[in-house]
Amino acid sequence: MQNLQKSARELRAQIRSGTVSGHTSGLAPNRVQGNLVVLPAEYAQDFLLFCQRNPKPCPLLGVSGPGETGFSNLGEDIDIRHDLTRYRVWQHGEIVEEPSDVAHVWRDDLVSFVIGCSFSFEFALLEANIGLRHIEQGRNVAMFRTNLSTTSAGRFHGPLVVSMRPLRAADAIRAIQITSRFPSVHGAPVHIGDPRLIGIHDLSRPDYGDAVEVRDDELPVFWACGVTPQAVVQAARIPFSITHAPGAMLITDLSNQTLASF
Amino acid sequence: MQNLQKSARELRAQIRSGTVSGHTSGLAPNRVQGNLVVLPAEYAQDFLLFCQRNPKPCPLLGVSGPGETGFSNLGEDIDIRHDLTRYRVWQHGEIVEEPSDVAHVWRDDLVSFVIGCSFSFEFALLEANIGLRHIEQGRNVAMFRTNLSTTSAGRFHGPLVVSMRPLRAADAIRAIQITSRFPSVHGAPVHIGDPRLIGIHDLSRPDYGDAVEVRDDELPVFWACGVTPQAVVQAARIPFSITHAPGAMLITDLSNQTLASF
Repeated sequence: MQNLQKSARELRAQIRSGTVSGHTSGLAPNRVQGNLVVLPAEYAQDFLLFCQRNPKPCPLLGVSGPGETGFSNLGEDIDIRHDLTRYRVWQHGEIVEEPSDVAHVWRDDLVSFVIGCSFSFEFALLEANIGLRHIEQGRNVAMFRTNLSTTSAGRFHGPLVVSMRPLRAADAIRAIQITSRFPSVHGAPVHIGDPRLIGIHDLSRPDYGDAVEVRDDELPVFWACGVTPQAVVQAARIPFSITHAPGAMLITDLSNQTLASF
Repeated sequence: MQNLQKSARELRAQIRSGTVSGHTSGLAPNRVQGNLVVLPAEYAQDFLLFCQRNPKPCPLLGVSGPGETGFSNLGEDIDIRHDLTRYRVWQHGEIVEEPSDVAHVWRDDLVSFVIGCSFSFEFALLEANIGLRHIEQGRNVAMFRTNLSTTSAGRFHGPLVVSMRPLRAADAIRAIQITSRFPSVHGAPVHIGDPRLIGIHDLSRPDYGDAVEVRDDELPVFWACGVTPQAVVQAARIPFSITHAPGAMLITDLSNQTLASF
């Protein structure tokens, strides 16, 4: 435990110093990783409400006060300005920069949201010997915009984005049981089976990530995805925001098991 | 609680006296009902092992000693010879009688097995506002022999029998969560989606019970079924056995909630 916590902390130190870069998938195994959304305080209240109303795509692991850069509940030493490998800086819904540090654009009115990520439940699925094709094939998970609406809050609204994993029936049932234990990292699937019923017409053409094959003896299983809040923030075209770059998550000290609800 | 227990007890008294007959579905709402298998002691050891090896189709709520007619854990006053509305008496795998009382064929070497029944998890599904078509249509649930084997024990072996309920995806996911809480009444489904993958080629022709429609926006969801042990006992063609008649269950004092595992 002590060792694993140290390694998450060491990893953040190495990211901060630039020794470690790139995707964080597979780094600090069993440590919770999180999506990041950073907004000016005047938009943060609505976004907090949006997350509260849409807990499946937006499960909050932590919210900072305005200008605060630490998250003591996620790791004592965390400095949110330095501790991700890659960020995206947005202005009016457009990416203006993809830096490895955001100290130069930091402001005292910025509120940070750390949102649970599917890496945690994928860890639990792999521990249960449930194979995940995108991991086996070294691809990003396939993600799709659906015709399911989120519940809006102020200027934040938009469709639910889901990730899809193909599973055989018995594994799909186990995966529903296992991910139900992890409500703070998207929880149980939102759909299983026919993708057209949620407005997805071609599984071979994901809106984000990479396509993976669904075999004849498999069902596509769909989970609410942390891209949803990012897409919603982008669509709101607010003057300034920061997010993590895809696959470049915040590594926390929490073990995935601490998120299990029973 | 006291009142509900009294009503299960009163119901058994009325069944014993012949005032109440017929199917027990819907009687004593929220009380656990059970399948019954009664075997001579020389076969009971193998059957107990069969149940232990196949807990999904054969979840044991109680097993008597040889000749015992009570089940104090299921209801203080229970007399297994009188308290079901209808029995089947079997010889060498054939039904020889369908009496409303089995005192006249009782023997001191008979061991009784009370096995959990889907009524309990259906109660939990209905409480969660998940509609069950066979109940809405006043039919028996559709049941099918599969190509999945049970694990044999002595002379007891045979295919897994499943019950099928059509559900929309979101309800199917909820139903998996809910029934996972009830391992002693068959627990989570064993299959979802394409019936051919478990050897079922025509959903409109169940092996037991009544067919129900599966609509375009629904998935067939399959649970292990208490008909499995009955079919296995029948196939073993042992000289003498007693079972409940279809739909005529033992009504116990237990509330369904007491079976919930978390």
